[in-house]
Amino acid sequence: MPQCDAALSQAFALLGKRWNGMILGSLMTGPAGFSEIRRALETISDSVLSDRLSELAAAGLVVREVDEGPPVAVRYHLAESGVALVPVLRDLMDWARENL
Amino acid sequence: MPQCDAALSQAFALLGKRWNGMILGSLMTGPAGFSEIRRALETISDSVLSDRLSELAAAGLVVREVDEGPPVAVRYHLAESGVALVPVLRDLMDWARENL
Repeated sequence: MPQCDAALSQAFALLGKRWNGMILGSLMTGPAGFSEIRRALETISDSVLSDRLSELAAAGLVVREVDEGPPVAVRYHLAESGVALVPVLRDLMDWARENL
Repeated sequence: MPQCDAALSQAFALLGKRWNGMILGSLMTGPAGFSEIRRALETISDSVLSDRLSELAAAGLVVREVDEGPPVAVRYHLAESGVALVPVLRDLMDWARENL
């Protein structure tokens, strides 16, 4: 009998939401500022990127760090659970390159 | 500089679409009929499941097999590229259990 795995459902509810997986992917190579992430994702709007970063921070995958400056600078980096996802994202990329 | 990986973008466009990841997950344990998959996913409608299975078959991840019978029986199973995704889905489940 096929089963619906609750953990997989949770993972796709978060990562499957448009942009979330790509935002995490864009932070795989290191911390980045808001506009760097926006440029990497090309067609995302400021308000959607802002919402998504808040959501990923609330889920504990991304950390928003503020350098009080001056000038004030905000950067984002993967939290520990986001870093733990990196090898899975790499395997997913390899799979996509070979199979899609 | 953060980058947007094209393969990751493709993977999330397909797997991130609501239900697609869960449908593949439901076939990880073996072939299943339409109504078995529908029951496993609980809240999906017949028409959406039918659309998604067609999409996953067109993408080459799922195979629709018809046993001419009688009675005619339709079953679905993971194609080779779907099977190749199984270890990635398992890692994603493990990650979700530990981090979400």
